[in-house]
Amino acid sequence: MSNSNPPFSTAEYDRRLAKTRTAMEKAGLDVLFVTDPSNQAWLTGYDGWSFYVHQGVIVTMEGEPIWWGRYMDMMGGRRTCWMHHDNILGYGDHFVQSTEVHPMQDLAQHLTTRGFADARIGVEMENYYYSAKAHAVLGAELLNAELVDATALVNWQRLVKSEDEIGFIRKAAAISEKVVETAINRAAPGVRKNDLVADIMHAGITGVGDDWGDYPAIVPLTPSGLDATAAHLTWNGAPMREGEATFFELSGCYRRYHAPLCRTVFLGTPSDEMRRAEEAQIEGITAGLDAARAGNRTCDIANAFMQVMAKHGIERSGRMGYPIGLSYPPDWGERTASIRSEDKTMLEPGMVFHFMPALWMDSWGLETTETILIREGEPAEPLCNIDRKLFVKS
Amino acid sequence: MSNSNPPFSTAEYDRRLAKTRTAMEKAGLDVLFVTDPSNQAWLTGYDGWSFYVHQGVIVTMEGEPIWWGRYMDMMGGRRTCWMHHDNILGYGDHFVQSTEVHPMQDLAQHLTTRGFADARIGVEMENYYYSAKAHAVLGAELLNAELVDATALVNWQRLVKSEDEIGFIRKAAAISEKVVETAINRAAPGVRKNDLVADIMHAGITGVGDDWGDYPAIVPLTPSGLDATAAHLTWNGAPMREGEATFFELSGCYRRYHAPLCRTVFLGTPSDEMRRAEEAQIEGITAGLDAARAGNRTCDIANAFMQVMAKHGIERSGRMGYPIGLSYPPDWGERTASIRSEDKTMLEPGMVFHFMPALWMDSWGLETTETILIREGEPAEPLCNIDRKLFVKS
Repeated sequence: MSNSNPPFSTAEYDRRLAKTRTAMEKAGLDVLFVTDPSNQAWLTGYDGWSFYVHQGVIVTMEGEPIWWGRYMDMMGGRRTCWMHHDNILGYGDHFVQSTEVHPMQDLAQHLTTRGFADARIGVEMENYYYSAKAHAVLGAELLNAELVDATALVNWQRLVKSEDEIGFIRKAAAISEKVVETAINRAAPGVRKNDLVADIMHAGITGVGDDWGDYPAIVPLTPSGLDATAAHLTWNGAPMREGEATFFELSGCYRRYHAPLCRTVFLGTPSDEMRRAEEAQIEGITAGLDAARAGNRTCDIANAFMQVMAKHGIERSGRMGYPIGLSYPPDWGERTASIRSEDKTMLEPGMVFHFMPALWMDSWGLETTETILIREGEPAEPLCNIDRKLFVKS
Repeated sequence: MSNSNPPFSTAEYDRRLAKTRTAMEKAGLDVLFVTDPSNQAWLTGYDGWSFYVHQGVIVTMEGEPIWWGRYMDMMGGRRTCWMHHDNILGYGDHFVQSTEVHPMQDLAQHLTTRGFADARIGVEMENYYYSAKAHAVLGAELLNAELVDATALVNWQRLVKSEDEIGFIRKAAAISEKVVETAINRAAPGVRKNDLVADIMHAGITGVGDDWGDYPAIVPLTPSGLDATAAHLTWNGAPMREGEATFFELSGCYRRYHAPLCRTVFLGTPSDEMRRAEEAQIEGITAGLDAARAGNRTCDIANAFMQVMAKHGIERSGRMGYPIGLSYPPDWGERTASIRSEDKTMLEPGMVFHFMPALWMDSWGLETTETILIREGEPAEPLCNIDRKLFVKS
């Protein structure tokens, strides 16, 4: 038996598995243990809020992938993964958050049974869900194996999206539009920020028509005034105030696919400085979109934006975006390429980025961003359609 | 300069720091590097959705703790931590998700400057936010230091709550009641699950009166029918159906403090089997609450529950709860003690647990749970007040 209704077709999962195996071969891996929940879902369809305990996907050079996790989550695996039920493995509850035994002992047993006790095993060393302890235990259990860092091996295979994936991201983008419109329309002096966030979340989860909303991998970031000089504050119960800018960093989510979209709302009359920054930012985004085309590199997008900023006398360096798609908390980025001057990733049609040239200044923040699709021979397509400007409500 | 409005008093933060230092001394640590976002917030007040990049708190045997993170998150540190601004450190953006440099190189530099190049340094090896790679880089940078596993050292100090913390959890509990009531009232055949979840989230974030709602560390788990045999599925856009049970695993959140509360709703007429399980579960919870008193141990709660189950011919083993309080995704548990037969943690007044003796059967799931406060000489106090039963709507 297997789940008859995973999000994607068999052909799509076969394609993903084949791409992954090609990369494994190139890296000289016999087997790959995937802990990133996004990679697990991308390969197998697994979907559940169970990544707070150890779990993962075992990919070998043949046969179906194997999902491995807590015994009680095998049921979730059976209901969401496309593989046959005998490729869904569970470990006992006594392993969970124990100081005496560790789930990686169980994993090592399975790998040994399958003949990988002395194999070259790829592990995702830089991932939230593969702890230093997990690595130490796995290494101690498999003394004859070679554990190789395969961080982002699968993530890189996800960089160019299939038509089906782009379809999912377009649905997420429609939800993003609804969510951002809700934020803009509801923002007003005296409105408690948490009440506004409640409406934002309601709009996102309700979704658009039949396209129901899933939870985004990052909660709404909605700081106002001085709080908006910090990039990652969430919200509180204080009322919104006249004379302050609030940025809204939001995303709709459709079946774990994202399309982040940020806009900034000013209540009252913004300063000339902010108006000038707005003008520069919008001009810079247009320049960035133009540079974001197949054949160029990620750094070209960042450089095009920074050149416009420099012309306007605004200093902005650092990271200005990242690929997006399928994700789980705590990050909706794919953690491969970055839009920044040091990054030389060649752009290809079908890549999707959150182009995110936010400005965090000494006394305010201004976020205007787009989720963009890279195309051949023309500027990138912004997948959302919301006016690109500072929204002023007086 | 420092933040004048952290969630707790200076005396409370001093108490926490002193407890932590006592534990450090016992473990023979010169310095402790804390990555768990809950531990960071507990020690310093730091609050932001930035834990998807490397950050942490450095605790030495004297002076204020030091918050260390991404440069752009220093602003968030200054706005949320109680320490002076010169104890908030930031690393450059080129370290973020780079394959060439790693933030732990920057941390090693700071530790070296402060004289800890050859110290005994505690690190949280079993934590989502301390990756295998981070550990490897830190170890390679500090060849003369000894990195010691200090997983949960701070978490254990959090087990007994202060009066102020219990006050926060009571506020969260009031929000939990509102959230669960919303779920029960809105559940009906034909209601799309995502629309119901949208209402649940709206109720939680709106909060109760002046007590605004924060984001819970786990999104609503709301599976129906066969999906409810799996413990950790979230939701989709399918309408609720007559003849199915849906469990709601939910929590209100007040300034990062939680009070999880689960109830199950049946649309139509439940089977006799489910009714008998309901009866047994409620009787078992009462027995568990009675055993949950200062001087007993965590296992006594589990054993009291299982004994009632056995009497009713229902097999239920495994973990039935965990301490709760301050938390960040992906888990609202504190990851120290467990309510299970192998765990012998002595109960003390002021401990707060999510007592969670859910039943996941072959064709349905039944979750009825309580957040409970351990007291001296009497049964634990359930902090929410919602009828303890299977809610049947026909």
